[in-house]
Amino acid sequence: MGIKASPTAVLQYGDHGGAVGYLVGEENRGLEYMFIMMNAARFAVGVQGIAIAERAYQKAVQYARDRVQSRPVDGSLNAAAPIIHHPDVKRMLMTMRATVEGCRAMSAVAAAAYDAAHHHPDADVRKQNATFYEFMVPLVKGYSTEMSLEVTSLGVQVHGGMGFIEETGAAQYYRDAKILTIYEGTTAIQANDLVGRKTARDGGNTAKAIAAQIAGTEAELRASGSAHAVAVAQRLAAAREAFVDVVDFIAANTRANPNAAFAGSVPYLMLAGNLMAGWQMGRALLVAEREAAAGRDVPFMQAKISTARFYADHILSRAPGVRDAIVEGHAGVTEMAVEAF
Amino acid sequence: MGIKASPTAVLQYGDHGGAVGYLVGEENRGLEYMFIMMNAARFAVGVQGIAIAERAYQKAVQYARDRVQSRPVDGSLNAAAPIIHHPDVKRMLMTMRATVEGCRAMSAVAAAAYDAAHHHPDADVRKQNATFYEFMVPLVKGYSTEMSLEVTSLGVQVHGGMGFIEETGAAQYYRDAKILTIYEGTTAIQANDLVGRKTARDGGNTAKAIAAQIAGTEAELRASGSAHAVAVAQRLAAAREAFVDVVDFIAANTRANPNAAFAGSVPYLMLAGNLMAGWQMGRALLVAEREAAAGRDVPFMQAKISTARFYADHILSRAPGVRDAIVEGHAGVTEMAVEAF
Repeated sequence: MGIKASPTAVLQYGDHGGAVGYLVGEENRGLEYMFIMMNAARFAVGVQGIAIAERAYQKAVQYARDRVQSRPVDGSLNAAAPIIHHPDVKRMLMTMRATVEGCRAMSAVAAAAYDAAHHHPDADVRKQNATFYEFMVPLVKGYSTEMSLEVTSLGVQVHGGMGFIEETGAAQYYRDAKILTIYEGTTAIQANDLVGRKTARDGGNTAKAIAAQIAGTEAELRASGSAHAVAVAQRLAAAREAFVDVVDFIAANTRANPNAAFAGSVPYLMLAGNLMAGWQMGRALLVAEREAAAGRDVPFMQAKISTARFYADHILSRAPGVRDAIVEGHAGVTEMAVEAF
Repeated sequence: MGIKASPTAVLQYGDHGGAVGYLVGEENRGLEYMFIMMNAARFAVGVQGIAIAERAYQKAVQYARDRVQSRPVDGSLNAAAPIIHHPDVKRMLMTMRATVEGCRAMSAVAAAAYDAAHHHPDADVRKQNATFYEFMVPLVKGYSTEMSLEVTSLGVQVHGGMGFIEETGAAQYYRDAKILTIYEGTTAIQANDLVGRKTARDGGNTAKAIAAQIAGTEAELRASGSAHAVAVAQRLAAAREAFVDVVDFIAANTRANPNAAFAGSVPYLMLAGNLMAGWQMGRALLVAEREAAAGRDVPFMQAKISTARFYADHILSRAPGVRDAIVEGHAGVTEMAVEAF
């Protein structure tokens, strides 16, 4: 598969004359210490997913500008065109771009909360930010890396047959990315953390406080009144309502019917990550509209607005279906006898 | 990447002393002749996607029965259990299983129509079956191979770190499968065929005739009255309505606004393939209920029923969101300036 330049090795101590162990820190706190590293590593692996997805996007754009094949479907050119002119290639590139921008914004907001959790002068603000950051870590790790599989796969797809062979480099991202949903805790382990420690433990309060903030962004988008802002507000509201339904389901079932709750754990993570990324895209759209109106960086701001609209219609629109799978679809998972597989 | 045992070679004629070309068949009909082979090849590549997905499923089930890690979340065992007992592992295996069964049933129904199109004594029945088969070919090819990427990725995921290295064989399926969405016409080429020749050309009539047949299956499911049949009928109805909306959109826009229509081409293919596979799962559920009631092969029939229910809740439930992306989401694709990527 991938990450072939990673200097991974097995270190085995004690084969020749024994090895000496030293106690680091206090006894029985090793797991707790380890998790300081592990939580940082989880966030970092999420960023690794975003980084590889961004590089896959850049390479795909470059290839799509260069590779000439087929006439445009709108008849605008009576000759073969660079494939970036074809609607499905644009759709693939937009999916890659919007996913990267959404996940990157989500990770940046989480990182800012981490800083505030450690350095804000007000203890209450520190605590709020710590809680928010802790909720976001499994989403940054789980959602960004799962989505990096989709993005790097599209990167190969944009290249066609040239992407499947190694020459272009697109295949390497696809092969490398698959480790990201596995190491430093698989997506299912992130989802267990999200369900247990981050949602059920406080009865869904943190999740619902974030949902209330998202509703605030929806109101700002509706107040803006532009067609794009209103459309994004509508998708955001549908995704937020789906999220709240799922949070209620998870909080009610984690103890009462743990098999049903955990059958929905990864879909819940994907829905929550999608919503958080889509929320940041909505916030970005509001800023971009203001900046464009003030005449600053207009082409950049227009691209940001189009990308936010795309994210809402093509990615955030997946959320209500995921809600149905979790809240109404656990029987299909739990009732299947282990022997029947 | 993959298919390393495929004896692919470049054949170059004429380097040493020239080469002789022979006319095969009639002049100017070469492309037409080639497409007889190509249409057979497209169906066959779809089946290749189903085959590799089935093998990935079998291997993942085998590993999940063997690998012991963590206690069950329902407290049913006070020791680590084989991972097949964990709800998310069951969910992944069910996703793999349901996808394979749905796509396999879809391809079998298409193959039966091909036989009837060639060998039925009644010319009208032959024509109906030919039209149905032609509609199904891009779905069997496009949907089954796109889904084989998801299934083989889950196959690696079930294996965890053991799946990323080559030892288990799970990674090979993931690497091999990626060519299937590319060769014998990429998914976008299948989708162009679906939009142009298979939908717009007859104003969506074939697509809608199939939708009417699906509504008939929904009625049978509702008449059965079992909780699973009624739930499947509900998802099938939602997916069918989404499909009909998209067919109307595609038929209305393929000439009027081709960029908007083709921006939704691959999502339309995925929605249509999902619906056709889900429809066959609904039909299979009806047969399985009758067989189980008659006491025949009861555990097999129960597994078939659970798998159909899973397909409906976890996979068919994606369809309405895809409709929104196509019908309401083309602006985010078409308005992005090529220079802005």
